[in-house]
Amino acid sequence: MERARQDPAAFAGQMLGDFVARFPPQEVPAALRHEAKRALLNVFGCALAVARDPAVDAAVRVLRPLSGPGAATAIGRPERLDPMAASFVNAMAANLLDYDDTHLDTVIHPTAPVAPPVLALAEARGLSGAAALHAFLLGAEVACRLGNAVSPGHYARGWHITATCGVFGAAAACARLLGLSGAQSWSALGIAASQAAGVVESLPSAAKNVGVGNAARNGLFAALLAQQGYAAAPAAIEGPLGWARAAGDEPRLAALGDGLGERWEFGKNTYKPYPCGIVLHPVIDACLALRAAHGLAPDAVAGVRVRGHPLLLARGDRAVENERDARVSIHHSVAVALVLGAAGVREFSPAAVADPAIAAFRAKVRAEADDSLPVGAAAVTVETTGGAALQAVVTHARGSRERPLSDRELEAKFEENARLGGFGGRDVARLIAQVWRLDEADSVRPLLRALSAPRS
Amino acid sequence: MERARQDPAAFAGQMLGDFVARFPPQEVPAALRHEAKRALLNVFGCALAVARDPAVDAAVRVLRPLSGPGAATAIGRPERLDPMAASFVNAMAANLLDYDDTHLDTVIHPTAPVAPPVLALAEARGLSGAAALHAFLLGAEVACRLGNAVSPGHYARGWHITATCGVFGAAAACARLLGLSGAQSWSALGIAASQAAGVVESLPSAAKNVGVGNAARNGLFAALLAQQGYAAAPAAIEGPLGWARAAGDEPRLAALGDGLGERWEFGKNTYKPYPCGIVLHPVIDACLALRAAHGLAPDAVAGVRVRGHPLLLARGDRAVENERDARVSIHHSVAVALVLGAAGVREFSPAAVADPAIAAFRAKVRAEADDSLPVGAAAVTVETTGGAALQAVVTHARGSRERPLSDRELEAKFEENARLGGFGGRDVARLIAQVWRLDEADSVRPLLRALSAPRS
Repeated sequence: MERARQDPAAFAGQMLGDFVARFPPQEVPAALRHEAKRALLNVFGCALAVARDPAVDAAVRVLRPLSGPGAATAIGRPERLDPMAASFVNAMAANLLDYDDTHLDTVIHPTAPVAPPVLALAEARGLSGAAALHAFLLGAEVACRLGNAVSPGHYARGWHITATCGVFGAAAACARLLGLSGAQSWSALGIAASQAAGVVESLPSAAKNVGVGNAARNGLFAALLAQQGYAAAPAAIEGPLGWARAAGDEPRLAALGDGLGERWEFGKNTYKPYPCGIVLHPVIDACLALRAAHGLAPDAVAGVRVRGHPLLLARGDRAVENERDARVSIHHSVAVALVLGAAGVREFSPAAVADPAIAAFRAKVRAEADDSLPVGAAAVTVETTGGAALQAVVTHARGSRERPLSDRELEAKFEENARLGGFGGRDVARLIAQVWRLDEADSVRPLLRALSAPRS
Repeated sequence: MERARQDPAAFAGQMLGDFVARFPPQEVPAALRHEAKRALLNVFGCALAVARDPAVDAAVRVLRPLSGPGAATAIGRPERLDPMAASFVNAMAANLLDYDDTHLDTVIHPTAPVAPPVLALAEARGLSGAAALHAFLLGAEVACRLGNAVSPGHYARGWHITATCGVFGAAAACARLLGLSGAQSWSALGIAASQAAGVVESLPSAAKNVGVGNAARNGLFAALLAQQGYAAAPAAIEGPLGWARAAGDEPRLAALGDGLGERWEFGKNTYKPYPCGIVLHPVIDACLALRAAHGLAPDAVAGVRVRGHPLLLARGDRAVENERDARVSIHHSVAVALVLGAAGVREFSPAAVADPAIAAFRAKVRAEADDSLPVGAAAVTVETTGGAALQAVVTHARGSRERPLSDRELEAKFEENARLGGFGGRDVARLIAQVWRLDEADSVRPLLRALSAPRS
C-alpha cells in the first residue's frame, strides 16, 4: 500500500483495491456519511419519477424473461429481478432524466451507476444499511477519482464518463460489500477495465441508458467474478495497454491516490433542483425570484432578456421540438418558471412542451451572451407590457457547490418525484425517514421493499 | 442505402444496418456458407475442450444463480442457462485457449463473440439452422469490417479488438435473427457502440474472458433492446463523438462499405492447427516433419536450432513457468512436437509444462533471428548426437491463408477437442455431421442439445 501510494502510476489498481477492501467505516467523517444518504435519497426520487417511463418498461420487458430469481427490487415497479438485472434497470432509471447528482469536476453522475448494484446485492443477501452505505461511498469515491485521472481528455474524445468510470465504482462498491480482499478488489477493478464503455455521441438517445445501466450491472459482475477467482492483469488500469491510456491518452494517475481516504471527491457531490441542463439553473432561479417578487401574470410580460456567459448560450439556445430539447432550452426554462412558477419533472414533460401557452411564452425569450458574467451566473430582465424592466441576477444557482440544496430541499425534491411514481404522503414520509436512518438498519430489505411499486 | 454507400463516413451505421437486415441468403456464395460451417465446427471443438476448465466453472457459478429459465445450452456442460448467460459462457469458452479462428488482418477471432449469441437465441426460439448460419455470417462480416475500419490504431492503443468489434458482430447477427428492420438493426449497432470494451493489457488474464464473453452477451442485449424500441444516436459509430473516433483515432470508415456484400472479409478466416501463438506454427510444422521423416528419439537429439523472422523471437522466446507461457514459447513448442509428436491441447496443458522430459528438452532449443526468412516462415535444424544436422524449412504454416486446414483436418481437430470434453466416437461423428448439415436443420435445437454435456 505504501509503495503503491508513492508511485500511483505503477500501482494504481493495487492501491485502489486496498483502499476499497480496507478503509474502515469509522474513519468516514460524519458529514460524508450523511452526504451518501443525501445522494441515495436524491437518486431514489429520480428513479421513482420515471418508474413507469417507456424506456424503463422496455428494459424490464427485455430483462425480465432473462432474469434469475427475483431477489432484488426494481424501484417503483412491481417486478422483482435478479440483482444484475435490477442493477441495470435501477441505474438507467436513476439517470434517465439527468436529474441525478453531479461531480462537477468530471461531470460524472456517480450515484446512478454505483448505488443500484450495491443495494441490489445487499437486498439479495440481507446485508445491513451501514454496510451498503459504506460500500457505496467507497465506490462513488473510486468512480470520481478515476474520472479525475482521465479528465478532461476522456470525455472530450467521446467517452461517456458516467458509464465508463461508473463501472469501476460499481465494481469497487460491490467488492467491498462482498468482503473481498485487497487483491480480489484489485482484480474486480481490473475486470471493470475490460467492461468500461459508453459514447458521448449517443447521449441524446436510449443508448445512453444502456451505458449507465451496464456500468451498474457489469460492476456487480466484476466483483462476483473476482470473488470466484477471476483476475485481471495487475496493471489493467494503469499499464501501457491498459484502460486509462487507451481511453484517456495521458492520464493523470496521481489523481487516483492524492489524499485518498483523507480528501473526498464525493464530498463535492451536487444535486439538481431542476431536471434540466445545469447551465440553465441560475436562469430558472432568477425567473422564480422575479415571479415571487412581482407576481407576474404571463400576459403582463412583453419580453424576457436572458444574459449569461457564452457557455450558457452555447448549451441552451436552441429550438424546442421535444422534451429532450426542452431540457436544454433557455426559452423553455424561462417559460415554465415564469408561467407555471415551477421547473420540475412535469414542467419538462412532453405535455408541457406541447402546451400552447408555454410555446407562446418561449417566443418572448431572447438570450444574449455577456462576457462580464462568470460561468454559472445569469441575469434575467422581464420587460412588462406596462413598460417596466424587472431584473434579477443570480451568481450561484441553487444546488451549486456554493449553494447546496439543504436536506429539506432534497426531501421536497424527493416528495415531488415520489408522487410522480405514484407514492402518497404517508409512504413518502416513511421512505425519507428510512433513508436518513439507513445506517441503523440491520437490513436494507425494508427500504428496498418500500421502494417497490406503491400499494394502489 | 445508396446514399450511405457513397458516403460511408457519414452513414456507416445506417449502411451496416441495412446490410444486416436485408442481405439475402441466396446471394451468399456457397463457399462462404461452407466457411461459416467450418468456423462453427472449429469453435464448438474449442469450447468443448475447455468445458470443464476452472475458468468456465467459475463463470457458470456466477451466472447460474442469476440466470433466467435455461433455454440455452452451455456447451459441453450439463447446465442450461438463459440466452444471455449462455452467450457469455460459450463465447469465453470458445476463445479461452486462443485456439479459435482468426481474421488475420485485424487479429479478430470473429466466431467466439458472434456465434454463441446467435445459437443461444436460435435455440431458445427454435429457429432454423439456415437462419442461424446466415445471421452468424453477416455478424462475423460486420465485426471484421469494423476491425478493418479502426485498425491498426485501435489495437495499438490497447483495445482488445475481438471483444470491442465482436459486440457489433453479435448485435448485427442477433438483429438479423430477430428479423429487425434496417432502422432497428442500425439502432442495435449503435447500442453496441455503447458496449464495446476490453483492454489488451489484460489479455494474459481472466479479464480477457470477460471482454469476449460480454461481447457476445451484450450484442444479444443490444438487439433485444433495439427490438423493444431502444435507439442510439444516428452516428453512434461514425460521429465526431462516436465509438470509431473515440477508440480508433482516425478510423478508415470507407473500409466498412467497400465491396460490402460482394467481397467478404469473413472469407479470409483462418483456423489454428495448434493451440498456441500463430508465429509458432511453422516451427511446429517443421519439427513434426523432421520427426516423421527421421523418427527422432529424444535422446538422439543433441540440440535444436530455430531460425525465423525477428517477430518470431519477439513473440516466442521466453522462459516457461506455466501453460500461458508455454503457449507462446518456441522452446516448449519444439519440445512437444519432437518428443511427443503432437502439439494439441494436452501438449500445452500444465501437466505437459511440468513433464521433466519436456522441460529437459526445452533446454536443448536455441532460437535465432534470421532476417532472410519472411514473416510466417521458420527453419528448424536438429543436431543429432551422432553429429548429423537435419533441417526443415516451412514458409507457410498449416492453417495459414496459403495452406488452409482442410475440412478433414478441421474434423480431426474437432475430434480431439471433443474427446477432451468427454465425447466418445459415435457422438463426435454425429456432431460433425450435424454441423455440416446445419443449413438443412429445421431447428438448431438438436445440434445444441447434442453439444451439452455428454452422456456419461
